[in-house]
This record gives sequence, structure tokens and C-alpha cells, in this order.
Amino acid sequence: MSFSPLVAELMEALRCLPGVGARSAQRMALNLLRGERESGRQLARILAHAMEHVGHCQQCRIFSEQPICDLCRHPKRAMHQLCVVESPADVFAIEQTGAYFGRYFVLLGHLSPLDGIGPQEIGIDQFSALLKGHPFEEIILATNATVEGEATAHYLAEIIKRQGKVASRIAHGVPLGGELEYVDGGTLAQAFVGRRVV
Amino acid sequence: MSFSPLVAELMEALRCLPGVGARSAQRMALNLLRGERESGRQLARILAHAMEHVGHCQQCRIFSEQPICDLCRHPKRAMHQLCVVESPADVFAIEQTGAYFGRYFVLLGHLSPLDGIGPQEIGIDQFSALLKGHPFEEIILATNATVEGEATAHYLAEIIKRQGKVASRIAHGVPLGGELEYVDGGTLAQAFVGRRVV
Repeated sequence: MSFSPLVAELMEALRCLPGVGARSAQRMALNLLRGERESGRQLARILAHAMEHVGHCQQCRIFSEQPICDLCRHPKRAMHQLCVVESPADVFAIEQTGAYFGRYFVLLGHLSPLDGIGPQEIGIDQFSALLKGHPFEEIILATNATVEGEATAHYLAEIIKRQGKVASRIAHGVPLGGELEYVDGGTLAQAFVGRRVV
Repeated sequence: MSFSPLVAELMEALRCLPGVGARSAQRMALNLLRGERESGRQLARILAHAMEHVGHCQQCRIFSEQPICDLCRHPKRAMHQLCVVESPADVFAIEQTGAYFGRYFVLLGHLSPLDGIGPQEIGIDQFSALLKGHPFEEIILATNATVEGEATAHYLAEIIKRQGKVASRIAHGVPLGGELEYVDGGTLAQAFVGRRVV
């Protein structure tokens, strides 16, 4: 004996959410059914609407329901810097810091030939078009500090240099508050390589 | 600068799910938008459908899209035992054990006068009607081992006894695999009170 078919179906459907296993899905479904009916209806409405209408910004590839996103159309963003990131969440994380005021380009992934993700999949045509169409002085490569992120940054740096522009890579090293004793060897080595005169 | 209005709205809506904070909601929304569009559409459909069509079984009050749930209609369930629980998740947990084959009654909460939850809210009329209409020999009170659960069990026991039926309470004691050293004092005291001759 288990839950009724429709309730079981709802639990199963909720498992498409990342980090939601059988127990969480059960808790979510029962919670929604118990007291959150109106929130549940609203979530269903917004979800259906978003799945249909959210696309990608034609310039920076971030998720947006408009052809050109607010960020790309913003009149006060610096036009001489472009920051390349792997995902929209990275844009959000960088915006939170308040340390960068330029434009973005979202790869929506990283190069990973084994998974069939090549230059086309990370929007290389759009990236090249963006470079040609705008007078960026510096392109900051802010891909992840993973093997794939580094390879992607390396690949993009070549393209950028061929267009006669400056490519830079965000710094790798000991995170703020980090104690040398507990930082891994690779990071520590990078911290030495990237040392700066004070 | 933040996510586009529709994406931000989706993140906000996802926060109605229990255990989902700002970070999880962001991860869920971006995940759905990135590669899980069809799953997202299906979740929206099923969610909307469930919010409209899932009601309560007229007999046991469990969530069900039919007037009488599968469990209540099951011909092979023992008709002489009734187990009273606080939530549908408890029914599922008990069913998983395979230790009980009788009928259920779901209170959908516990007595909590301060929160305005009295006998009416936990379905006391339906409970009394169920008792009168069926020849249960034993009613097992399986509410939680919390203050509210105990109070609710006590209240129901009075009603059951008044109808000349037998009420029993599930055992409280040291959980299987539990070491006495680490069990709290209240549980240990209950284990002594509920000791049985072997």
C-alpha cells in the first residue's frame, strides 16, 4: 500500500528538482497538499510560464524572457570590459560582490569533448560576434578553476588574442580567511605562481 | 543587477517548498531552465492537477483523489484493527515496516489549543462515525511521542473507551540499535515503565 496514484505521481515529478530525493519529494508533496495549495497552484503557473517563455539573451546568453536582457541593455554598465563565465549563477555571484561593472558572456557550460560539448555548444559564434561588434579592451575569463574551466579559458584566450584584444584570467590562490595549513597543494602552488609585489 | 523578472519569480515561487531556501531555489530554477524543460513542464502540469484534484478520503482522511482511498477499499485489510496517526507520511512509514495490516485514520495534525487546533480540526466527528460504523476490536494510537502527540492520544483514548472499545498505545523505549548510554532520560524512563516479562 502506498500513496494514491496522483500523490505518488506528484512525488515522482518533484524528483526532477536537483537535490530532491524520495524523502524530500514526499515531504514537499505532503506539505503542498496539506496547507500550501495556493502556493502550489502559483508555483505550477509560474513554472509552466517560465518553461515556455524564458529563453537566452541573444548577446550574452543568460536566461531571459526578452531577446536582449536587462544587463546587456543597461546604459550604465562599462562597455570596455567583458567577463566570461560558465553559468548564469556565476553572473549572480559576481554581481553580489559589487566588484565588477562591465558586461558578461555566459558559456552555459565548458568545453568537454568526451561529453560532446565543443566550441559550438558554448556559443563560440555568438562570442566572436560579440567581440567584433563591441570595443572591449579587456576580456576577463572567469570560468571555474577546474580542469574543464581552465581548458575552456585557454581556448578562449587564443581566440581573443587572435582578434588583437587583451584576455585576463581571474586570480587563483588562497581564499580569504583560508589557513595555509589546510589549503590543498595545487591551490598553494598557484598562490606562489601568482604572487604580487606589495 | 539580478536575474530577469520571470526567472526571479520562479526562484521565489520555488521557495514555497519545504526546506528550500534562496540558494536551493536558485539552483533548482537554473537547473530546470538549463536542461530539464520537459521535466519542468510535466511537474507544472502534475502539480496543478494535484492541487485541484487531490482531496481527503471520506473515511480515513488520507490524501486521495477518490472519495474513498485504495487503502480503505482494500478487501484484504484486517477490519478489526484501526491505527490512528497524525499524518499521511506516518501511514507510509508504518506500511513500509510490513508489521500492520489493519485500517488507518489520519488526524492531519494533533491537538494544539494554542494554535486553534481542537477536536474538530483533527476530524473527531469522522473518527467517531468510523468507530460506530465498523466493528474494530482494537484502536492503536500511533501519534508521535511528543507532548502534543501524547495529549492527542490521551484524548482519543477517552473517546474510544466511552464507546466500549479497546485503545492501545504504541510502545515507547530504547530504539533498536540504541545504546543506553546515549538514550535520553525520558526515553529510558519510558523503557522501564513499559518493560515486559520475557
